[in-house]
Amino acid sequence: MLLIHNIGELVVVPPGPIAGGAMRTVGTIQGAAVLIDGDKIAWFGPESELDLPPDCDVLDAQGGCVTPGLIDCHTHTVFAGTREDEFVRRIQGASYAQIAEAGGGIKVTVEAVRAATCEELIDLAAPRLSRMLENGVTTVEVKSGYGLTVDDEIKMLQVARRLDEVHPVEVVSTYLAAHTTPREFEGRTDEYLDAVLDEAVLARIRDEHLAEFCDVFCEHAVFDVEQARRVLTAAAKHGLKPRIHADQITQMGATVLAGEVGAVSADHLEVVDDAGIAAMKEAGTVAVLLPGCSFFLGVGQAPARQLLDADLPVALATDYNPGSSMVSSLPLVMSIACTQMGMTPTEAIIAATANAAVAVNRQDRVGAIAVGMQADLVVLDVPNHLRWCYEPGRNCVRAVIKAGLEVAISERSAGQLVRAHAATEE
Amino acid sequence: MLLIHNIGELVVVPPGPIAGGAMRTVGTIQGAAVLIDGDKIAWFGPESELDLPPDCDVLDAQGGCVTPGLIDCHTHTVFAGTREDEFVRRIQGASYAQIAEAGGGIKVTVEAVRAATCEELIDLAAPRLSRMLENGVTTVEVKSGYGLTVDDEIKMLQVARRLDEVHPVEVVSTYLAAHTTPREFEGRTDEYLDAVLDEAVLARIRDEHLAEFCDVFCEHAVFDVEQARRVLTAAAKHGLKPRIHADQITQMGATVLAGEVGAVSADHLEVVDDAGIAAMKEAGTVAVLLPGCSFFLGVGQAPARQLLDADLPVALATDYNPGSSMVSSLPLVMSIACTQMGMTPTEAIIAATANAAVAVNRQDRVGAIAVGMQADLVVLDVPNHLRWCYEPGRNCVRAVIKAGLEVAISERSAGQLVRAHAATEE
Repeated sequence: MLLIHNIGELVVVPPGPIAGGAMRTVGTIQGAAVLIDGDKIAWFGPESELDLPPDCDVLDAQGGCVTPGLIDCHTHTVFAGTREDEFVRRIQGASYAQIAEAGGGIKVTVEAVRAATCEELIDLAAPRLSRMLENGVTTVEVKSGYGLTVDDEIKMLQVARRLDEVHPVEVVSTYLAAHTTPREFEGRTDEYLDAVLDEAVLARIRDEHLAEFCDVFCEHAVFDVEQARRVLTAAAKHGLKPRIHADQITQMGATVLAGEVGAVSADHLEVVDDAGIAAMKEAGTVAVLLPGCSFFLGVGQAPARQLLDADLPVALATDYNPGSSMVSSLPLVMSIACTQMGMTPTEAIIAATANAAVAVNRQDRVGAIAVGMQADLVVLDVPNHLRWCYEPGRNCVRAVIKAGLEVAISERSAGQLVRAHAATEE
Repeated sequence: MLLIHNIGELVVVPPGPIAGGAMRTVGTIQGAAVLIDGDKIAWFGPESELDLPPDCDVLDAQGGCVTPGLIDCHTHTVFAGTREDEFVRRIQGASYAQIAEAGGGIKVTVEAVRAATCEELIDLAAPRLSRMLENGVTTVEVKSGYGLTVDDEIKMLQVARRLDEVHPVEVVSTYLAAHTTPREFEGRTDEYLDAVLDEAVLARIRDEHLAEFCDVFCEHAVFDVEQARRVLTAAAKHGLKPRIHADQITQMGATVLAGEVGAVSADHLEVVDDAGIAAMKEAGTVAVLLPGCSFFLGVGQAPARQLLDADLPVALATDYNPGSSMVSSLPLVMSIACTQMGMTPTEAIIAATANAAVAVNRQDRVGAIAVGMQADLVVLDVPNHLRWCYEPGRNCVRAVIKAGLEVAISERSAGQLVRAHAATEE
């Protein structure tokens, strides 16, 4: 067994979904301890009430705050190539269309991913996951969507599955072939969808456990509502749960669709309307906000307070990707949510744990401090959870526990993380 | 001698001040090397043209980008206590006045600083400097201004001087007794200024080398233009160079005053006007922008493009302080400048090196890559300088050289930095 003791503040986030007033406060225990048996939380409470078992490994939190491990529920972490030139061009005033005409945009990433082997993609993505882990993230959703052929999409999903196997971070896979229509199918979007929604393809994804979710980018000039409905409905027949990029730039009813198909999450929501909010609420859809994306693009943020005040369970994620959000730090995104969207630190932490767990359909296992939950925990350098959001850009993480194992954070350099704490023999 | 080789891109920032079109581009050398003799750059150029001296220590940049060490030219790094409660209250809509009435605001920090010993303040500030160093910052300006009695202001300056002696980061000290009028002098601001501008006090600061600069917070209900003029003029008689908090919230002519007194820098400038811009240009005053502050407060940014287009030398700094900018990462501030103010990565890097050097009156020694300049260098994990701003919140720093010595960045935990590279015996 593993004991974490000398905890300055244990942030007792309950399992999600959490909405409304329940997001504004969170229970805390000062002077706490957590006892871990195998991969699960066996006990937590005031250290004075601890009944210490014999032969317990001990981790001293040194008065730091302990929270559930963060969950990044919307990322595109598997990619090749970077697009800093495009970043500069956009700052200088180039439009999306001008960048695309000059050979930039998503097709740069698609070409790089198609040209890369599985091994190359793993070598690129593993250090990114390590940096996320160093920032306290223990579960990461990863989408395909840069292959845009059946084979290359499957390759991306295989990479995500392999990363889940070899990396301490738990990877949740999403099939996002409907990210955009590739060059080869220009003007023939429905034919592209025929290919990537082929029954045999979807059956393979299901049978080989390559993805749990299906996603679609529902946006003007990308996929319309009827196409998005077709994507999510076809995938759902093969057990892939629906989620959707909705209401980012154009209000076209995507979030209403999210409600209609019972999407687990609707993500972005910069231009969400009342009908969309009502539909999400009716369906129990999680509102996933991506403030790092708006920050990176220098555009307006989603109306977080409106969504919170509507009692929707709100989650936060990085949207980490080379085009619109090279922000891989979920704690920084939490700070952006506080300073740019009016979310409180408590709301931000619940949004990045309990509610993000719902957005990856793992609320029964992660994202909360409760007996029997998986022991995914973050030990901070700071004495309370408010401080984490209060210091934007500082990595406040002292130690990370994933499924009861301490993951070493001894070197900043990525890729060198190891599970330092051997599984307990009992 | 020390050789840094295998440099993917050497960013040859020239000495400041740099303005206008010269900020938009920077010379780079691919496949470069830098030779360091003692604390100075002895040679740089394409590695193919290197004439390698015997008995040279070697640092392999592994294809990474190398830039001048960053200079954070406006900070309040010496402080005690934190104000996360106030951060939350402000997010929830409390005004500055409401926070002050509830016992919050700067007086919380003033009380904590007054209660702290020199040793306590050093123990608090040293890890902050270490985190800055880990992010590539080799020179930091630090202001007093939380003591607000002669003795406590002197204590803060002594702490800054001591930090300069014991910490690898070079600390530049600024006397900011005119930060606000303390409680004891409420309604008697001129009497407070009598005390802190006393000839004997200023002479002591000069004689004991406690500060190089004098600063004043010129703002509505703080210090007006005539009071600010009095502060800066009195200090200048004792050799303290003027700088000024100007045009942050209220346009009251503070930047015009900056020009009139020949201020080295005018800082903030969120509400700068044309007269202020003209005055700065006439006087050669550096425009120091603090985007982390506006980001942290969730308010509008300074008009960076207007200042750049007026051919002013623009610098960037963190304004690191517990009330309005708990952002200690200058690279994050550079990213904020790119995404929120329309500055390009090249402009941001010049603003945080060559022009920041001018703002701390060290342009003859630091902030540039040139033969004879002090060897303050950053080795990045990324192959070009655009990537540094393109990945907000990622620490891209692989190694830091301060005055020719490699500073170990082996542990994330602050306070453990040592000068690992012993001085070369020749």
